[in-house]
This record gives sequence, C-alpha cells and structure tokens, in this order.
Amino acid sequence: MIVVVNNNAAKEQFDNLINWIESQNVRVHISSGEYQTVLGLIGDTSRIDTELLEGLDIVSQVTRVTEPFKNANRKFHPENTCIDCGNAKIGDGHFGIIAGPCSIESEEQIIEVAKAVKEAGADFLRGGAFKPRTSPYDFQGMRADGLKLLIEAKKETGLPIVTEIMSAEHLPLFEDVDVIQVGARNMQNFELLKELGKTKKPILIKRGLANTLKELLMSAEYVMSEGNENIILCERGIRTYETATRNTFDVSAIPMLHELSHLPVIADPSHACGIARLVKPLALSAAAAGADGLMIEVHNNPQKALCDGAQSLTPAQFKETAQAVKNVLQAIKGDV
Amino acid sequence: MIVVVNNNAAKEQFDNLINWIESQNVRVHISSGEYQTVLGLIGDTSRIDTELLEGLDIVSQVTRVTEPFKNANRKFHPENTCIDCGNAKIGDGHFGIIAGPCSIESEEQIIEVAKAVKEAGADFLRGGAFKPRTSPYDFQGMRADGLKLLIEAKKETGLPIVTEIMSAEHLPLFEDVDVIQVGARNMQNFELLKELGKTKKPILIKRGLANTLKELLMSAEYVMSEGNENIILCERGIRTYETATRNTFDVSAIPMLHELSHLPVIADPSHACGIARLVKPLALSAAAAGADGLMIEVHNNPQKALCDGAQSLTPAQFKETAQAVKNVLQAIKGDV
Amino acid sequence: MIVVVNNNAAKEQFDNLINWIESQNVRVHISSGEYQTVLGLIGDTSRIDTELLEGLDIVSQVTRVTEPFKNANRKFHPENTCIDCGNAKIGDGHFGIIAGPCSIESEEQIIEVAKAVKEAGADFLRGGAFKPRTSPYDFQGMRADGLKLLIEAKKETGLPIVTEIMSAEHLPLFEDVDVIQVGARNMQNFELLKELGKTKKPILIKRGLANTLKELLMSAEYVMSEGNENIILCERGIRTYETATRNTFDVSAIPMLHELSHLPVIADPSHACGIARLVKPLALSAAAAGADGLMIEVHNNPQKALCDGAQSLTPAQFKETAQAVKNVLQAIKGDV
Amino acid sequence: MIVVVNNNAAKEQFDNLINWIESQNVRVHISSGEYQTVLGLIGDTSRIDTELLEGLDIVSQVTRVTEPFKNANRKFHPENTCIDCGNAKIGDGHFGIIAGPCSIESEEQIIEVAKAVKEAGADFLRGGAFKPRTSPYDFQGMRADGLKLLIEAKKETGLPIVTEIMSAEHLPLFEDVDVIQVGARNMQNFELLKELGKTKKPILIKRGLANTLKELLMSAEYVMSEGNENIILCERGIRTYETATRNTFDVSAIPMLHELSHLPVIADPSHACGIARLVKPLALSAAAAGADGLMIEVHNNPQKALCDGAQSLTPAQFKETAQAVKNVLQAIKGDV
Repeated sequence: MIVVVNNNAAKEQFDNLINWIESQNVRVHISSGEYQTVLGLIGDTSRIDTELLEGLDIVSQVTRVTEPFKNANRKFHPENTCIDCGNAKIGDGHFGIIAGPCSIESEEQIIEVAKAVKEAGADFLRGGAFKPRTSPYDFQGMRADGLKLLIEAKKETGLPIVTEIMSAEHLPLFEDVDVIQVGARNMQNFELLKELGKTKKPILIKRGLANTLKELLMSAEYVMSEGNENIILCERGIRTYETATRNTFDVSAIPMLHELSHLPVIADPSHACGIARLVKPLALSAAAAGADGLMIEVHNNPQKALCDGAQSLTPAQFKETAQAVKNVLQAIKGDV
Repeated sequence: MIVVVNNNAAKEQFDNLINWIESQNVRVHISSGEYQTVLGLIGDTSRIDTELLEGLDIVSQVTRVTEPFKNANRKFHPENTCIDCGNAKIGDGHFGIIAGPCSIESEEQIIEVAKAVKEAGADFLRGGAFKPRTSPYDFQGMRADGLKLLIEAKKETGLPIVTEIMSAEHLPLFEDVDVIQVGARNMQNFELLKELGKTKKPILIKRGLANTLKELLMSAEYVMSEGNENIILCERGIRTYETATRNTFDVSAIPMLHELSHLPVIADPSHACGIARLVKPLALSAAAAGADGLMIEVHNNPQKALCDGAQSLTPAQFKETAQAVKNVLQAIKGDV
Repeated sequence: MIVVVNNNAAKEQFDNLINWIESQNVRVHISSGEYQTVLGLIGDTSRIDTELLEGLDIVSQVTRVTEPFKNANRKFHPENTCIDCGNAKIGDGHFGIIAGPCSIESEEQIIEVAKAVKEAGADFLRGGAFKPRTSPYDFQGMRADGLKLLIEAKKETGLPIVTEIMSAEHLPLFEDVDVIQVGARNMQNFELLKELGKTKKPILIKRGLANTLKELLMSAEYVMSEGNENIILCERGIRTYETATRNTFDVSAIPMLHELSHLPVIADPSHACGIARLVKPLALSAAAAGADGLMIEVHNNPQKALCDGAQSLTPAQFKETAQAVKNVLQAIKGDV
Repeated sequence: MIVVVNNNAAKEQFDNLINWIESQNVRVHISSGEYQTVLGLIGDTSRIDTELLEGLDIVSQVTRVTEPFKNANRKFHPENTCIDCGNAKIGDGHFGIIAGPCSIESEEQIIEVAKAVKEAGADFLRGGAFKPRTSPYDFQGMRADGLKLLIEAKKETGLPIVTEIMSAEHLPLFEDVDVIQVGARNMQNFELLKELGKTKKPILIKRGLANTLKELLMSAEYVMSEGNENIILCERGIRTYETATRNTFDVSAIPMLHELSHLPVIADPSHACGIARLVKPLALSAAAAGADGLMIEVHNNPQKALCDGAQSLTPAQFKETAQAVKNVLQAIKGDV
C-alpha cells in the first residue's frame, strides 16, 4: 500500500501516523519529495483501512498495491475453481445454464416451466420465492410456500435449484436448495453474508447495482472467511446514466473478474437489460467474453400470465438462445 | 400512468395487456397514433409494476404520473412533519444536529465525546456499535457492548442517541435507542424495513449509494406502510464517476425531497466527502439549501486514536462548524 | 409527447402553455385528473424542446413518445443501411474490421502496420494524426504530416483509411480520407458536425463518454440533416463509477442502436477497456451481440516503441483476434 | 508517480519499461515485493502519459502523486487569483453575479433584462448568441446578430458581458465580449482551448457533464499553457443516474477546486438542476460552500415568451435570490 503525505503536515501528526501504521504490523518505507512524502507499506496490509487513511487531512492519496481479498484472489490460487452444485457443476470448463421464472406462482406453473427449460437445455432451475421489490405494494413472492413448490419441481425434474434468500432467519427453509442466491440489493448485507459463510452451500452472489468488482470480491471474501468457499459470482448490470436499458450490462466484468479471481463468473442478461428481446444478444456476448454460465428468466404462458412476460423468454425463445450460446461456446473453444 | 404501445403489436398481445391492466382495478384510456398507441391508466396505479410493463416486447415506454409512494407523499400530506425523538425534535422548523464518533471504542471515549459535542451545540449523540465494513478484515464495531456504552453516555448527558441497526434480530437491543439508523447499504434491505415498521421508533434512513430519491421514498414507504410514520431522510452522498471526493454530495436532494415529501431531510457531510476539511463547507451548503438537520462525525483525541481522525472533526472544529451553521440558518430564515 | 401539469398551476400559466404548444403546430389533447392534468401533444413534436418544458414550474413531467431523430430512425427507414467506404463496406451484413496504430509516428511505422493488419484480416487502416489529449503536455499527434503518411500507407496497401478530425478548419486536408472519425470528446461539437454534413464522406461518430444512445443518434441527425447520410455509429465505452477498466463497455448499446436506427454500429474494444489483454474477449462479445464491425488498435513493435504497447495488440494478437471474431460471426449467422 | 508492475513480467519487457521511463527525463526508484514491484518515478512527471502506462500488460496500477497541471495548481501558486473582467472582478474576495437570459431574442428583450438584472444586483450580463443544442431542430441562437445586441446592452448598462463561443473561427466577433464562455460540451474541444490561450480575454470554462475536477483543471491548463492565465472555473452539475434533477449539482467541487487550484470558482445553479424553483436553494448552497460567484438565468416576461420560462427566474425572483445570497455571504464572512 502506498500513502502520499503532504509535506505541510505537522511533525506530531506525521509521527503519529507512522506509529499507528507500525502498530498494524506493517513496515513503512519513507521517501521524501519536494511537496510530498511517499510511504510504502510492506507486509500484510489487508487489515489496513484505506478509507480511514484517505480521510486524514495530511494524506492526499492512498493506493492499494495488493488487493485486500485473499481467499478469492487468483494471485494466491492460480487454478480455476469449479463449484459442485448437486448433480451439476459451474466453473473451470463447466458451463451452467440456470433458467426459470422470475416468481414462483403455482405448482402447475413451476413444474411446467421446469420441464420446459430442462427439455430446452437448462442445467439448473431458478424461481423466486422471496422477492425483493422496490415498492411495498408490489407482489413480495410466495415465500415459504413458494420454496416448497420449487423443491417439488426439483424432485419432478432432477434439476438442481437456485433461489434467493433475503434474511438469515429464513436459512432453515433452504435446506433442500442447491444454490442460494444473494441478490444485488443484499450484496453488502454483511450480517447475511457471514451467516451464509457458516453453511457449506454454494452461494451465488450478484453484483450490487453500483458496486465495483473489488467490492463484489470483498463480499465473496465475507462468506469465504467464515469457511464456505463455494462462491459463484454474477454480473447482472450496473446503474449508469443511460436509460435506454434498465441497467448497463458490464460485459468486461467477466474477463476482469477471471483475472482477479479464481471463482466462476456467470451473467444474468435478463436483469441486465430488462427487455426480453435483448436477452439473446447479451447472452451470446457473455458467452463470447468467457462467462462460466448464464441465468435466464423463462416463463411458460405469456398469453395467460402477463406478469411473466416482462423480461422473460418463452420456452421456445429460451431453447433457441441456449442453442445459439452452445454454438458460440463451440466457436471460441480454447480461445478467450 | 402512461404506457406507450408499438403499433406492430399483435392484436392478441394488445388485448391481453388491456385485460391485465383492467384486472388491476384501473381504467384505461386508449389514444391511437400513426406509429404508437398511448394508454392512459386512471385510478390507483401504485400497485402496478412498471418494470413488468417496461419489459414487455410490445411496450416502448412507461411513465408514472403519480408517484407510487403514498404515506411519504407531500401531495397527500401538504404540512411538514416534525419527528419527536425523546427530548429533541427534527423537522418543520426544528433543526437537529447529530454528532459523535464513527465507532464507539470505550466508555471513556464515548462519554468524553458526548460531553464535548453537547457543550459544542449538538442536539443528539451518534456512535456506531454495529459497523458495516466493505472488508471482513476491518473492525466490525463493539456491537452489543458498544450499545451499552452509548446508552451510558445518554444517561450521563441527557442527549438522545442515534445508532445503526444491521439486522432485525438485534432489535431487542435497541429498546433505549432514540433514533434507529438504517445505513446506506441496507436502504433496500426490505425484510429489515418491514420489521422496523412494526416499532414506533424514529427511523433515520440513509440514501443508498446509487439510489434515486424516489427509491429512498419507497424505502420510507416500506416502514410507513407497516404503521410507523416516524421517518427522517438523510442525504449522504451518491456514487458517481468523480473520485476527488469519496462520494458526490447531492445537495439538490434536500429541496427536491422537501418538494416530494413532508418528511424531514437531514444531511451527512462527513460521509458525503470522506475528508474532514470539507465537512464545514458542505455542512453550510446543506443548511443553506434548507436541510432540517446535520449528522457530523466528531472524535475526541486525534493524537491518540488515529482511527477517529479520518473524516471526523475535533470538538473544537465541530463547535466552530455548528456556530457557522447557526449563522447561516439565521441568514436564510424564512428564505429557502 | 406527453406533458404532465400540476393542478395547482394558475389558469393564466396553463393557458399560456397551451397557446405556446399550439403555436408550435402541434395539437393538444387535455385529460384532467385529481392532482394532475395530462397533455397529449399530437403531430410533429421533433421541434419541441423538452428541456424547456421540463423546467417550467407548472410541469412535473415530460415524456417523448416519438424520438426526435428522423433521418436516423429505424421507424421511418426499416431497412438496414450499408455504408460504402471506397472499396469496403460496413453494415447490412458487411462486417468491417478497422485496425491500426493509436498514433502515426513515422512512414516506416504506419506502412509496416498497414501491411501487417491487411495480412491479418483488416478491411480498413486506422491511424491518429490529430490526437485529442487530456493534457496539453501529452503528444498531440503528427497532424498534417501524419495525414500524409497515412495516405501513403493507403496507396501502398489499398486499404481505405479512417482518421479523426478535431476542427472543421482541417477539412481540406481530409480529401483522400475514406472515413472521417468524430471522437468521443467532439460528439457534441455541433459546429463540426454541421460542417461534416456538407460533405459526402462516410462519418464515423463515436459515442461521447457520458452520452446516451439518443444523444448519439441526435449527433448523427446533425450530420444527416445537412444532407450527408453516410454515418457509422461506434460504441467505445462509457464513464461509470467502476475503475477496474478505463471505461465500461456498453455491449447492449449494439442491439439497442440496431433497434432504434438503421445505421451500422461498430465497437471499439481497445478504448472501451484500455487494456490489451481484454481486447479479444470484448471484440468477441461485440461480434456476438451483432456489431457490424470493430475498431482495434494494433502496433508494430512493442520492444521499440513503448507508446504503442498500451491498449494495442501486436499484429500476431490481432490476427488471432480477427480469426476468433470470424468464428463467432460464423456461429451466430442469421442468429442475433 | 507510482507504477506497480506484476512480477510475472518478462525481463525484456521490464527493462524496456525502465528504459522508456528514463528516456522521459525521470528517475526511477525500484522496490520489489513478493508479487509486485513498485516503481517510484521522481522528477517532472507531468509529461508522462498515465493511460499509456495503465494499458501495458505488465502494469497493474498507476498513481499520480503530483497532479499534471502546473499553471492552475495551488501548490505552485498558493495565493488566490482574482480575474479582472472590464469593470468587474471575480475571485480572491470578489463575488461576481452573472445574470441574463438563456438566449438573446431581440434588442428589446436583452436590454430590458440587462437593466432589470443590473437593478437587482447583477455584476455581469450573460446572454446566449451561439447555442449548443442536442437537436439540430432546436433553436440555434441568433449567432452574430445576437452578439451585436448583447454588445448594445453592454453599452446601455455598463455591465461587462459573458457569452459562449462554439468555434475558434468566431473569435473575431468576440472582440467586445468581456468574458468568453466555453460550454460544458466543449470543455475538451482542445483546438478551441488552444486558440483561446492565444488571446488575453478572461475565459470561463464550464465543467463537462462527465468530467472530473482534474480534467477541468487540465482544460484550464490548455489555455494557460498558451499564455492566457485569466481563467474562471464553473461547476454546473454532472451527469449521474439520478433523474429527479437534470444534472447533479456537485457542490463539493467548490471547496475541492479551491484546494487544488488558485483560480476562482463559480457555480451555475440554473443548468445544474434545470428547474427554476430549485435555483435559489442551490445558489445559497454554492455561496455557503465558498463559491466566488454565480451564473443565473433570468428572463423578462414569462407571460409572453414561454421559452424563457424554463429554468430561468423572473427579475423579481432573481432580486430576492441575489439578496439572500448576500445575506449568506455576510453570515459566512471569514468562515469557509
């Protein structure tokens, strides 16, 4: 870590800073310039709080040289990680397609969709039981009842299931869930992350809507530092000034996360754009950029249930997309 | 609500959409143009899900005419709200200054700061017991023990206390807390918001780092729709591309929130910039723009405890800032 | 266009607004609600200034139903446009790869790179003569002398050439240039755009670093409204809060621009990320998302000229990338 | 400047980098760690191109210790600069209020507004003759004819005048203009900035809608490096994800620019929000944060000319705002 100190700092403040840094079990290398003094911090700086240093009046800049994530860092684990999720895998050459409805609505609906996506090439079934909604007046999901129906669909089809958790209190309900999803809005719900770290379940962490890649990796680190190393990262679009799409799909996050971390990285094109007709080109772009999997919303009957029609594909559209994705994967084999 | 539909929509899709809208207890007024058809939705549209409509292939645009927040909306409650917080008030002419350390560290520290900020003009004492940190390796706060020390400081000085909650499970510990703070990272932790709605405590909700003003008001709505109308809103800087300050302090949020809502609005200049020497000008700018209060980090002894020194003011700097704020309030009296 | 007016507007203000709108040769349809009145503006609203309306105190919202761009709009020109650029084409099935160095440095350099990229599969040669640089102390390009060398390389290889213009005063120097590029920083240099509209040259317009897709199309409209319809649009990354890459490559811009406009859309993965090792995955993602071409920086000798090494590929890396792109194009044929 | 190099760099690449750096007349101090090597660049690094270094495969991070702007840098010019603009001044204790209409429309209009704003407390008259508009179909200003009317109004009232330039070719028309404004969209029109550097006129540079403070200072540097040191900086709102206001007014830019530079800093609350009723609170917040002046849109007759009514104040509203600003300036005297 490099800390730049203004030369107009009082000697007492400067000495105080050096003493504090050394008390953190880190050595300091001092080099003085005309206007600034540059401190090089050597040793394990992952416990040093950069925001604290940046806020000091005498400090003009702080730069991390080594990222503060350890367990998730490719530097210390050069090999790709593959996550075992029941009878499917994601990462290190295993491409996983997760598909299913935004919300679980009825037994008939979830089982029908489950069968359709299995037939069309999905490796996992997704379905929302606990739904985070911006408005308290919007449908909040079938909650515990929905989870039961999802587990029913798993039994029926053999597909491993992925669903979102919104509070650690609900963990006992997730026993038969194969992959627990942490949604974008809870990416920095640290109390929840710590509890998930005490399980052994695969955890799929979605990037928060204004979080950096390093913050995403620090959230993975929260889970991993408690002992659970089964993490799947998910790019799902970030918030920018552009309003033509609901979010801006940051496709470069895929190769960049692969560079920073050994964990598998998937993409959610449905939430990234919020528009069904863009799901296919974005799914293809993610596959071409080296993603380890995709998460795609699929509904069963747009004629009956409008609610499903939003950013979801029909089973037929999904099948066509899954096939095109496989063609792209074939084309880039050994390439990205 | 206005929904623009492409004229190339199939008749079945179009009819299906109209039927669905009408099933939501809303009337539809249809006007056809050359390339698009405009639907005017009349009635209570607060339960209509705009994201769902936007995602439909046949829909090219959705615009809300009436905001979906009701309890927080100034349209339905034109008078300013004043929140009673123990023996202090915020809103409708009552300006409240909340001051104290980032983290509670010891009994001596919190009591010393409490006395200092009271003497310097603070109306409330703040102090962090549960600390949300980006890194699992950073100090996570004294937690339950910290809360006890904060309550001690309240007894000693008579100042009402403000502190952050990170999980609904901790609620029983907050019985003697006067104002419960929901941090920026939990602004859309909806399970937590619902639980806080079942209490009668004043809730201070900080704007999330990439949340819109309307989303902030929807989060207030989550608490209010459960029966707790004691909400204080807080602007604390948003995430933008600019890196010269930690966040970008959105001072225009203050008059804009006053226009949209009857709830009091305070500002947190310490977190907004992350730099002690900018706290005073930003505090003055917030007061000049019509804020109902301020939340300012103050530490006791920068020579001993570096950790406090970051974006915090010394008691002397805080006193000077509080006095300058009062001068500005006097200058704009009856003005903004 | 839909304009929402508050019902507390004074009658005089309201009448004044209606009169003004009608003076713009647009009809108004008025529907009154309890709190607001909704005005539907019918007719050619492309000349109505929305910012002006939004700023009025009595107006709470303005929504365009028809986009204000006409010449660039797919609605009025459903067929894809193909741009003829000397002996190469871009758009409507013609995929064009533009490659070459960031800056032209010497005759030897540009001719060597030209030959290398031609051999490796490029359809166009690019090279910067006039260079927009954030700092006045950075290299500003070889300017007129650089242009001459670029034209030399065109003669030598037969590749059509693409290069950036920074001021309309330089137009006479661009006579032998095949495609004139407008850089991101000049996307809203309207005086320049108007002058380019008076030529018949293909104009490649790069998206500004914080411009929306609709603003990009309005800039195309500036050129087209003066009579030059030969426009190529280019996505090159936008500015967001994320700092892991220089910009955030908005891959969804590609399918979305195709939906809004009939003009060809290419991508510049080199500037989008600023990192050579990400150029290939981003190039593949753009091709997979339906781009009509790519613009890639290639240098000749990283051992000698460090300056070229930045975000540029070596000819060998470019050849490998171009081949992989062709594989992806083959895989998605008839698909996106 | 600090450059972090990965330890997996090939020796040849590493040596090449060191040689290149040394060829830039800068010394290099090398310190090796387990995973990275940190290079400290000592000497005048203002001519080193950081983007180039960042893009190198072997480089993982580049940090400037000394900002690359010299003439604008407070470090080298600790005293505040005061800009002399005809018979008014801005900076170093001189607060300047610039007021006038968005567009010049007629002799009667501009002279009427000029008299009104002078009477209400303005120090400068502004008025747009050349207007940058997103759409080619919007009013582009009266151009040369408008400039003549503005000069007429200057003669009539004695107020110095401020107006925007869009192309260096128009410079001869600006001889009688007191302050030449560079608009947000042209902040990085470097060819224009260089030409303005050859004049002696005060130049008011508006921050681009997605430009950092350091980029704004580099644009000032473009003008100053050509010999013209009469620069006024202007914060006018930046583009963020928030849509409640047209832009997000970055009030913290004011104290931060004062810290980085000796140049005067003014604010434009009218463009920052785009809503007349927010102009007053934002003007007060800017004054409270230490601005050296304000630029406010004022029109004469909202009943006749709707176009003026947008984000502009009436003369009466402007008078009230100017008075309130003076009260705030009085309150913070010697304070920020």
